[in-house]
Amino acid sequence: MKLVIGDKNLSSWSMRPWVLLRHFGLAFDEMLIRLDQPDTKAKILDVTPSGKVPCLITDNGHAVWESLAIMETIAENHPQHAMWPRDAAARALARSISAEMHGGFADLRQNMPMQIDMHAPGLGATPATLFDIARIDAMWNDCLARSGGPFLFGEFGIADAMYAPVVMRFNSYEPALSEGSRAYARRVTALPAVAAWIDDARKEAAR
Amino acid sequence: MKLVIGDKNLSSWSMRPWVLLRHFGLAFDEMLIRLDQPDTKAKILDVTPSGKVPCLITDNGHAVWESLAIMETIAENHPQHAMWPRDAAARALARSISAEMHGGFADLRQNMPMQIDMHAPGLGATPATLFDIARIDAMWNDCLARSGGPFLFGEFGIADAMYAPVVMRFNSYEPALSEGSRAYARRVTALPAVAAWIDDARKEAAR
Ligand SMILES: N[C@@H](CCC(=O)N[C@@H](CS)C(=O)NCC(=O)O)C(=O)O
Ligand SMILES: N[C@@H](CCC(=O)N[C@@H](CS)C(=O)NCC(=O)O)C(=O)O
Repeated sequence: MKLVIGDKNLSSWSMRPWVLLRHFGLAFDEMLIRLDQPDTKAKILDVTPSGKVPCLITDNGHAVWESLAIMETIAENHPQHAMWPRDAAARALARSISAEMHGGFADLRQNMPMQIDMHAPGLGATPATLFDIARIDAMWNDCLARSGGPFLFGEFGIADAMYAPVVMRFNSYEPALSEGSRAYARRVTALPAVAAWIDDARKEAAR
Repeated sequence: MKLVIGDKNLSSWSMRPWVLLRHFGLAFDEMLIRLDQPDTKAKILDVTPSGKVPCLITDNGHAVWESLAIMETIAENHPQHAMWPRDAAARALARSISAEMHGGFADLRQNMPMQIDMHAPGLGATPATLFDIARIDAMWNDCLARSGGPFLFGEFGIADAMYAPVVMRFNSYEPALSEGSRAYARRVTALPAVAAWIDDARKEAAR
């Protein structure tokens, strides 16, 4: 398997499947295409017709793109790992909140972009962004209450991977959050796979 | 099962799972919440914490929201129907283009909103919108060439349902398309489940 990603400091979508693969100990090659360069688009279009990263190249040489489709495909190919919850109702809920992230929270994404080496408390806190954050805060608490934690559906899985870049944003911009969400964000930040991405991102940004 | 939807003339996201359920002959109750009314948000929040339609209420009373998560859940619960392609590589591709629709084409969605009773050739054809349309046109032709048609992956499935509202937009705004995409759009429009939605939308709009 090869995962094509953008800069680790910046590419929130790339972080999701990378962290998932790493957390579950699945071997993969990594190909990093730097974003915002004159040849970025051409390089990405060489691997996927969508023109966006991440993109997974399977062992059969097929391109799979879109973070959510990549993670569904990885989950399907590794049924021994509970990347989605085993319980059907929990799985449907995990898919709902993962798709909600995939298609939504436009204001948060616009106004608090992921930049891991950035620390700017208060920046980007428009009313619409705070509305997105309130929804995420409520959702996290609801999932944690149902599952008992420590992650959204018990053990770390795709839904947590979907929200890991949101945790990065919260670490940078420090919006007000409930204590439950703050503790969850600390657990995600400390997860070895997430810590490895952060470490790479900081080194990359320092160069 | 109960499917909570918005106005049939307007709610592109609601159309997707409705058409899927109808096409595969799965029985469901329909609950329609009119959009853009003073009490719309409150009514939607009564069924789903995301505040958006569509929302599926399962036989066990669980809410499943987001069009893509609803359709993944329906597919999983009805393995006798090939809602996703049976072939793994085709399925990964179907998931990629479905997620690409779910998270993308912001300019098309913004500038050529679905309004089934509207006929306004040329409206909304900004450069960015035409760029989105060119990507969709290429994607449709690629999928049809691989599968042999008549739908994106052979028989009608989730990927076609994801793009059915795009067909509605193309019927309204009539952007230039390749002959392959025009023929595909005609086949989607003529599919009984799609025709039934269009018929309901026109009656609703006429009231
Ligand atoms: N919905 C897509 C979003 C992918 C996306 O927007 N990727 C950005 C980087 S995070 C990108 O490729 N930008 C480069 C470009 O548009 O040229 C997904 O889930 O993978
Ligand atoms: N990503 C969502 C989008 C849902 C959506 O935007 N629904 C619109 C109607 S098509 C809605 O509920 N609008 C009402 C509101 O926001 O108050 C999905 O796939 O279901």
